Amino acid sequence: MPVPAIDPFHAIAISALAHQLESQGRSVIHLEFGQPSTPAPRAAIERAHHVLDTDPMGYWESEALKQRVATHYAQQYGVTVAPERIILTCGASAALVLAISSCFVPGQSVALARPGYVAYRNTLRALHIGAQEISCGPETRFGLTAQAIAALEPAPAGVIVASPANPTGTILDPDTMRDIADLCRERGMVVISDEIYHGLSYTEPARSMLEFESDALVVNSFSKYFSMAPWRLGWLVVPERLVGAARARMGNLFLPPSALSQHAALAAFDCDEELQSHVATYRRNRDLFLEALPALGLNRIAPPDGAFYIYADIRHLTDDSLSFCRQLLLDTGVACAPGIDFDPVDGRHFIRFSFAASTALVQEALARMIPWFAARSAAVAIKT
Amino acid sequence: MPVPAIDPFHAIAISALAHQLESQGRSVIHLEFGQPSTPAPRAAIERAHHVLDTDPMGYWESEALKQRVATHYAQQYGVTVAPERIILTCGASAALVLAISSCFVPGQSVALARPGYVAYRNTLRALHIGAQEISCGPETRFGLTAQAIAALEPAPAGVIVASPANPTGTILDPDTMRDIADLCRERGMVVISDEIYHGLSYTEPARSMLEFESDALVVNSFSKYFSMAPWRLGWLVVPERLVGAARARMGNLFLPPSALSQHAALAAFDCDEELQSHVATYRRNRDLFLEALPALGLNRIAPPDGAFYIYADIRHLTDDSLSFCRQLLLDTGVACAPGIDFDPVDGRHFIRFSFAASTALVQEALARMIPWFAARSAAVAIKT
Repeated sequence: MPVPAIDPFHAIAISALAHQLESQGRSVIHLEFGQPSTPAPRAAIERAHHVLDTDPMGYWESEALKQRVATHYAQQYGVTVAPERIILTCGASAALVLAISSCFVPGQSVALARPGYVAYRNTLRALHIGAQEISCGPETRFGLTAQAIAALEPAPAGVIVASPANPTGTILDPDTMRDIADLCRERGMVVISDEIYHGLSYTEPARSMLEFESDALVVNSFSKYFSMAPWRLGWLVVPERLVGAARARMGNLFLPPSALSQHAALAAFDCDEELQSHVATYRRNRDLFLEALPALGLNRIAPPDGAFYIYADIRHLTDDSLSFCRQLLLDTGVACAPGIDFDPVDGRHFIRFSFAASTALVQEALARMIPWFAARSAAVAIKT
Repeated sequence: MPVPAIDPFHAIAISALAHQLESQGRSVIHLEFGQPSTPAPRAAIERAHHVLDTDPMGYWESEALKQRVATHYAQQYGVTVAPERIILTCGASAALVLAISSCFVPGQSVALARPGYVAYRNTLRALHIGAQEISCGPETRFGLTAQAIAALEPAPAGVIVASPANPTGTILDPDTMRDIADLCRERGMVVISDEIYHGLSYTEPARSMLEFESDALVVNSFSKYFSMAPWRLGWLVVPERLVGAARARMGNLFLPPSALSQHAALAAFDCDEELQSHVATYRRNRDLFLEALPALGLNRIAPPDGAFYIYADIRHLTDDSLSFCRQLLLDTGVACAPGIDFDPVDGRHFIRFSFAASTALVQEALARMIPWFAARSAAVAIKT
């Protein structure tokens, strides 16, 4: 048996081409990755300076940070999470590996939404766990439902839920989350909830799965709302019964995350004013995108309740989203992610725009794309 | 099938007790973990300050750092490693996960030395790969030999080699490394070489497995010689044929390591004078330990050629190394690691001292331990 083949993340190839064009002097606007363009909050950077000057540091888990995260669950969601249940990780990626390897064994399978974040499928595959992908379309706002999970044969050992979701930005409504939690409890399925985009919502705030299922495993990080992606710090909340298994894996597969990042992240919890100004930027960018969609000829999108993505149906223009993204980049200098990164079946008909850039860059990207999309539509209309 | 049970790292329990004693006002000397007590090199810290002030940072892999690591292989070992073959990781732990998951599948097994670093065995188990432990004693300086690997039935799919080794500090001689490389090439076994303690040697410099087998996977990090453990930055060298598989896993299971750590690490490559002064300290500490061993009544130890460990046989004093370490800590305030962390079979008869602390602390630890060990020996002599 060979090691499982893992698909590459195609947005990386688009990004590489984008950087190549930039090195040739082209003006490129990066909408291909889901990362804030803003630095860490000022107080986090100041804290890092201070620690660098005063603390030799060592392998370390910040009890204060775990306590602060626990307080966050109480304040934000009204749920009690003992600090011992929080495991600090090198980003949400490591938290997901930790969650999957603490819960499942080869031969089992896990349900997840398609489209969805590429690493769910690929991490399951790398860890030899099956993936039962559920095709989710506009009729469920691209989200999982308890009914769809209940209909799976054979029943999965667990479910990965994401709200707000990547690539669509859709938020699961509380009733759907409760139904999924109830179903999983009844059938003994593990729920892993990816809540990395919490704090970034434009309609109602996203709810935590812990409000509906205290035994859920929750993945989160400082990469999105806290604007600290390159600091590589995330966390996993595990139920009491999994603390030992997850901690033993943490101590062997990973060791604690960067001590400096832990110090800085604690300070970032006190930077809401600065961080809310980023959310206001994303909200403006989202509004600009929604206004521009008719001019782009894109009328089939998921409702972007949160995160910073527009996932648009482009089947009237192409059935090869990767080539489409490449051509869009070559012609306009705007880099986007092809849908095949998120959906190996229907993704060739979709494109994902990240609007985490500055408002000026989003405006410029839209100005470049509107005539390009119009020309493309016209060319297709002539052909058909 | 339940998820595999992973042993805890018992030194963490000793360390927790040590910190508890400190919080009660006791004076504790930490010899339980393998981490430098020194901070990152001054130039690395300066570079971090500069980057914090000038660069908003993003997900990033430093091409300059990969190039510098490649140059290091050319200069230090005379081997050519293309920068594309170097994958930067969140520490050596993630590099090991990446190596194992890129090479092996459940049902296969990997040979390794016992005693050895606890995470080899536990990471293999967490990833559902078998471990074929080879008992290594003083007759092979606690190291693997090609003969011992060749004698395994069934033949393993791969081998994990470590030189200098943890917990013993022994360095494999070039002939042994060549024999292992030749055997693995003949039999199609993958070699993973953990070279994390390179740069810390007191006899001859350690050789890289890449000198003997260009297809070896090599794990290394900035945690030991470079004194940057809490910065969580390591690397994996993979052969050309595994670049795609390993990069796809990196992009899904981990994402790139801390951008700030990558910037700082590049500067650390120019800090040899400062780092060699740490090596001089470790050499002094090692000499102090070796001088003190007769007074401690410890005459069966592995020769500590490198790293910063003494692994001592204490079977004349106990057959429960964990209780022994706890009592030593309670009585003297000196924290050490029990052998059971490194050897689940014979480890109850061993103790590991790390001499990465300052020379003053090592002197103080020895001064406290000598009468304690004498009393312990006397008590055992009366009983028997």
